[in-house]
Amino acid sequence: MAHRPRLSAASRPATFSVDACDEAGQVIATPIAGEHPLTVYVDKREVLTIMTLGAAPEALVIGFLRNQRLVDSIDDILTVQVDWDVNAAAVTTRSGLAKLEERTAKRTATTGCGQGTVFGDLMEDIGSIRLPKEARLSEATLFALLDRVRVHESIYKQAGAVHGCALAKGSEILVFVEDVGRHNAVDAIAGWMWLEGVTGEDKIFYTTGRLTSEMVIKAAQMGIPFLVSRSGLTKMGHDIANQVGITMIGRAVNRRYLLFTGTERFVRP
Amino acid sequence: MAHRPRLSAASRPATFSVDACDEAGQVIATPIAGEHPLTVYVDKREVLTIMTLGAAPEALVIGFLRNQRLVDSIDDILTVQVDWDVNAAAVTTRSGLAKLEERTAKRTATTGCGQGTVFGDLMEDIGSIRLPKEARLSEATLFALLDRVRVHESIYKQAGAVHGCALAKGSEILVFVEDVGRHNAVDAIAGWMWLEGVTGEDKIFYTTGRLTSEMVIKAAQMGIPFLVSRSGLTKMGHDIANQVGITMIGRAVNRRYLLFTGTERFVRP
Repeated sequence: MAHRPRLSAASRPATFSVDACDEAGQVIATPIAGEHPLTVYVDKREVLTIMTLGAAPEALVIGFLRNQRLVDSIDDILTVQVDWDVNAAAVTTRSGLAKLEERTAKRTATTGCGQGTVFGDLMEDIGSIRLPKEARLSEATLFALLDRVRVHESIYKQAGAVHGCALAKGSEILVFVEDVGRHNAVDAIAGWMWLEGVTGEDKIFYTTGRLTSEMVIKAAQMGIPFLVSRSGLTKMGHDIANQVGITMIGRAVNRRYLLFTGTERFVRP
Repeated sequence: MAHRPRLSAASRPATFSVDACDEAGQVIATPIAGEHPLTVYVDKREVLTIMTLGAAPEALVIGFLRNQRLVDSIDDILTVQVDWDVNAAAVTTRSGLAKLEERTAKRTATTGCGQGTVFGDLMEDIGSIRLPKEARLSEATLFALLDRVRVHESIYKQAGAVHGCALAKGSEILVFVEDVGRHNAVDAIAGWMWLEGVTGEDKIFYTTGRLTSEMVIKAAQMGIPFLVSRSGLTKMGHDIANQVGITMIGRAVNRRYLLFTGTERFVRP
């Protein structure tokens, strides 16, 4: 049987209600998205604080460790215990802190803020990514997926201020995550994939967010050949998509889309 | 005469054109937003890499150093030289690295990624923020400002994938910045304010982005009593807005808005 860490199940309410006064002078009870600090400790060492909606904190923490490549495999993670009384996620690992120390040392040597260094690290390995050439996505499947995504965006519809991500196989949504942070939603999907033993080669990654460099790198590192967004993209996102050969589709809403890269995998009617 | 650092003027083109295939099978030349890594060096020491549109890199770097409180005053900054051939911004300071060392040491001790620690630092001082109670914003001025903001969002209209921020006095936009990063646009405004000797007490801060905790903290730290967004907000953004007593308006588009906090400064007709 595959290894599965021992996990808490500590999700937070997605929305809260506050009063606001509208242009007609009416006081309106307005749903707003939750946002909570979650400090991640690995083997009792503080790693960082993530601001999150808190809907899937265990998967988020595992996916964060995966996408920052602080752990190599789900087998290295023994427990993830989230406690909202102290806004903390305690992770215990099998092999201890060696990799974390090494990465942190490297980061400290070169930069004061993880974001920059993390990105540098991610770029280093990009040449080794191989996405399956034979995977195919038809326009009909894309349209069916876009239809299904629409009904899943409940928090966004209610309160706004969140981004959503979905992992799909064909038009079937396997998991859908929303978070106040664009990258948190991606990381939570990466965590879910490890937890469920799901691989990327026959999947589609959908995001409501923009296709910036980090978003494209993360999808490619998860081994997913199809990246679909409701939003636009940046030049660096486009450059990296070309480099790794991912099939990238932007502005995908209803029956419209723009196919940017990896066109050979996309099947038009 | 007020001190002004010696600056390069090294902006990058805002948009680039790539081909995309639309749902009708037509190849469309599509404008996309630029995104470039910019590594910040302070007195030859690497601090971090920012992913940016590159429209106002000098102001961005100064505002980043200000908002992360790595420098106390514009007087501490002697030069900011941005060189896109090597994607680097070289900053020289008057007082050397003492403050940076201290902050970096602290950060390194507590976290592997600056984002978390930076946030912790920001929260520490929030109790000392005093925003002017007597400032007023009328609904008519808000509507006039929203009208003017609309015509300024050129990159967004063309290519999407960017957030815009404006600093206004009444309905007059003093500066408008767009960037691929929500916080970059805020930081660039903070840098511009220092460069131009502009203070916040009679200004309005407008953003297209969501009002999360960090956005509210940054506006309050710039001393600006009015925060207006086209988008929604999070619970923590709302909590902090209440705590610092900022006047926060969300969902502000055309003739609609929701007034959330600091209602005593807002004048309805």
